[in-house]
Amino acid sequence: VAANQTPSFSKKDLKIAAELRDQALEGSKDYEIVESLTTEVGPRMAGTPGDAAAVKWGVAKLKELGFDKVWTEPVTFPTWKRGVETAEVIAPYPQPLVITALGFSVATSEEGLTAEIVQFDDLDALEKAPDNAAEGKIVFIRNRMERARDGSGYGPAVAARGSGASEAAKKGALGILIRSIGTDTDRMAHTGMMRYEEGIEKIPAAALSAPDADLLENMIRRGKSVTVSMTIGAKSGDAYTSHNVIGEITGSEKPEEYVIIGAHLDSWDLGTGALDDGAGIGITAAAAKLILGLPQRPKRSIRVIMFANEEQGLVGGKAYADAHKDDVQNIITAAESDFGAGKIWRIDSKVKPEALPAVKQMVEVMKPLGIAYGNNEAGGGPDLIPLRGKGISVFSLRQDGTDYFDYHHTPNDTLDKIDPEALRQNTAAYVIFAYLSAQFDGDFGSGFHQK
Amino acid sequence: VAANQTPSFSKKDLKIAAELRDQALEGSKDYEIVESLTTEVGPRMAGTPGDAAAVKWGVAKLKELGFDKVWTEPVTFPTWKRGVETAEVIAPYPQPLVITALGFSVATSEEGLTAEIVQFDDLDALEKAPDNAAEGKIVFIRNRMERARDGSGYGPAVAARGSGASEAAKKGALGILIRSIGTDTDRMAHTGMMRYEEGIEKIPAAALSAPDADLLENMIRRGKSVTVSMTIGAKSGDAYTSHNVIGEITGSEKPEEYVIIGAHLDSWDLGTGALDDGAGIGITAAAAKLILGLPQRPKRSIRVIMFANEEQGLVGGKAYADAHKDDVQNIITAAESDFGAGKIWRIDSKVKPEALPAVKQMVEVMKPLGIAYGNNEAGGGPDLIPLRGKGISVFSLRQDGTDYFDYHHTPNDTLDKIDPEALRQNTAAYVIFAYLSAQFDGDFGSGFHQK
Ligand SMILES: [Zn+2]
Ligand SMILES: [Zn+2]
Ligand SMILES: [Zn+2]
Ligand SMILES: [Zn+2]
Repeated sequence: VAANQTPSFSKKDLKIAAELRDQALEGSKDYEIVESLTTEVGPRMAGTPGDAAAVKWGVAKLKELGFDKVWTEPVTFPTWKRGVETAEVIAPYPQPLVITALGFSVATSEEGLTAEIVQFDDLDALEKAPDNAAEGKIVFIRNRMERARDGSGYGPAVAARGSGASEAAKKGALGILIRSIGTDTDRMAHTGMMRYEEGIEKIPAAALSAPDADLLENMIRRGKSVTVSMTIGAKSGDAYTSHNVIGEITGSEKPEEYVIIGAHLDSWDLGTGALDDGAGIGITAAAAKLILGLPQRPKRSIRVIMFANEEQGLVGGKAYADAHKDDVQNIITAAESDFGAGKIWRIDSKVKPEALPAVKQMVEVMKPLGIAYGNNEAGGGPDLIPLRGKGISVFSLRQDGTDYFDYHHTPNDTLDKIDPEALRQNTAAYVIFAYLSAQFDGDFGSGFHQK
Repeated sequence: VAANQTPSFSKKDLKIAAELRDQALEGSKDYEIVESLTTEVGPRMAGTPGDAAAVKWGVAKLKELGFDKVWTEPVTFPTWKRGVETAEVIAPYPQPLVITALGFSVATSEEGLTAEIVQFDDLDALEKAPDNAAEGKIVFIRNRMERARDGSGYGPAVAARGSGASEAAKKGALGILIRSIGTDTDRMAHTGMMRYEEGIEKIPAAALSAPDADLLENMIRRGKSVTVSMTIGAKSGDAYTSHNVIGEITGSEKPEEYVIIGAHLDSWDLGTGALDDGAGIGITAAAAKLILGLPQRPKRSIRVIMFANEEQGLVGGKAYADAHKDDVQNIITAAESDFGAGKIWRIDSKVKPEALPAVKQMVEVMKPLGIAYGNNEAGGGPDLIPLRGKGISVFSLRQDGTDYFDYHHTPNDTLDKIDPEALRQNTAAYVIFAYLSAQFDGDFGSGFHQK
């Protein structure tokens, strides 16, 4: 593959891409696939029976869809299980609170942890507080996540979830409660991963639903000492081996070169993982299915990867990158769908400069979908971070995430939150991306560590 | 009080009513009161410690607001307590379901009840089914409640909650799950009262959240037998005596005659009862507080009644009607606020025909609030049903309930669901109603059993 030519797509390929797009808009298997996954498997947290059921489902589904090859690759990780999780205000105004343990939180004792609440505006305020600021107390971080189409409120807010426990422990805290990292006002707490810093005492960590965080704030505003009791029964388990599930459309000219589209197959345990990330599974598998319906296979291969255990540390993505580290240059480009089921409004690329004219051609075919070109700084999706580190080209098909964090990692992540029409728009964009990339006569710069 | 005159309001009274209205729109104690109740008491299901705390709170709040008299009247009723409540699909697709027990449901055995699901479109279909249609099974009623501003979807849907269990038992069922009586798609089940028919076996009864009802439907549509296990640990308790809490503004001319405004003080246990019925408590107490701020007391008395235990059978309303049955003619008219915190869009009256011109005058003062007159068939509110049965005049200040059943009887009934501006509009309407009715030179026909 020459690095310096400026290739483009043929008129015929662009026409087929437009036809595939229109077919996707008329209807494909997208909704049916996510309905199947959420109904027949449901919650599928890494290491649970749901995880095993999802892998089985994924293999069967890809075979049923008629992929040329379907296989699995092992992914091994430590496990964690949720247990009882309750909390209540003991004084001055006894009433229950809705919480959920953060992923990999340690448990409290069986009788629970009872202590006074000390409130901080955000993680930063906690970090800057004096060493004994939370001595013997339960830290409460009240910071609210901001709503945004591009989900840009998540990053600044989620740090409290990831490292709040260790920061609180450094200040002498016995436990931590954070306002859920979410944009809703539903009385459901948002779970998600947290990590303990090495050498720091591990204290139990949970999220409060937004109304419960409001309640604590309102009590604290009265100037009285607020005492809370929290009981968490979570525990770590043994290592578990799950699998990335891979379906391939084998290319007709350069079968060893391939385009990746994919999503993560695991979910958190609270909902049925319809938005996170059943939608991505439905979109990418349905897009490939449309390409399988063409009279002939595209030039290059297309792999649909259902990544194992994204939620607890991109483990499936790392395993794939590791297993395929020696032939990264065969990956022509890649895109993961993992931001719910809202319509795509923008596409970003990460390609070598010489390939940008081809990207512009691709975007033209997406324009009727309401998709505009963004920039050449695409991230590609969480499970592609490890491959991206090895220099592959990626695309980000950016979805409207305005409502995504209303449901993210809560029991409310269920099928009814998916708008079938928006899903079809996603599938239409993915089929354009996958087909044209597989047909591309040039390359996007994968394996060349382009800046 | 003469029955046949056609009295009207004085210009001065209409002017004061308009001033009170404008004062309410500028801000009163309404939001502060409901914030206080939900924060300092929270859930207050009849017969629980929250009930006792609410009564104490109510007395203190009415005294703090400066009512001329504050007292309580006893209300005695049987009690019920929620216990564990879990459900899961056992086959063919194991996954958890979110349920909540219906009020006064019996428990399952400790190991739970496991049986095949038999689905019915609605209560009617269940009633019309053959005698053994549910033999040994768990009945699932999938009927969806319709959304409507006036809440008219509630009546047809809620029958399944009230009598579904006994109807299912008549067909041999071991348990019943209904789709929640609600209009939301949140993964929260709606509780509420049910009743067992005498002589029919009592079977456990619970509601599924909307997404879980969808899930069951989707599984059943696949044509396979669906087995569910449900565990309910609810139990009935001893009789308990709570109290109606009453605050009076004592009239300056006819203190023995009075206008009732009120709401119910109890709530279900799942939320903090902000909409049901903390809002009503805030609106009516704040409206009275504005009248207490006038340079002189109105001619007649005004009673703010915080009714005990509305949720489990209008027990407070019945107790009040019973305790005051001999002087019902002293009640000039009455209105209860118990439909959330949406703006009032219509006012209905139930008055003698001669009083209708005065009602029209009252409505004129409400017009700037966007309130129009409806008809003379007002219901007045649940806790006024027993008094209405004794012939009193009532008014219905009808709120926009479009979203009310999204939150009704769920954990989601929390303070954040209240729009302070809409609350102010309610208070403005109630202060007009209460003040003008207390000043009225004629009467509305109370105690005369008008048609
Ligand atoms: Zn995800
Ligand atoms: Zn996630
Ligand atoms: Zn109510
Ligand atoms: Zn109610």
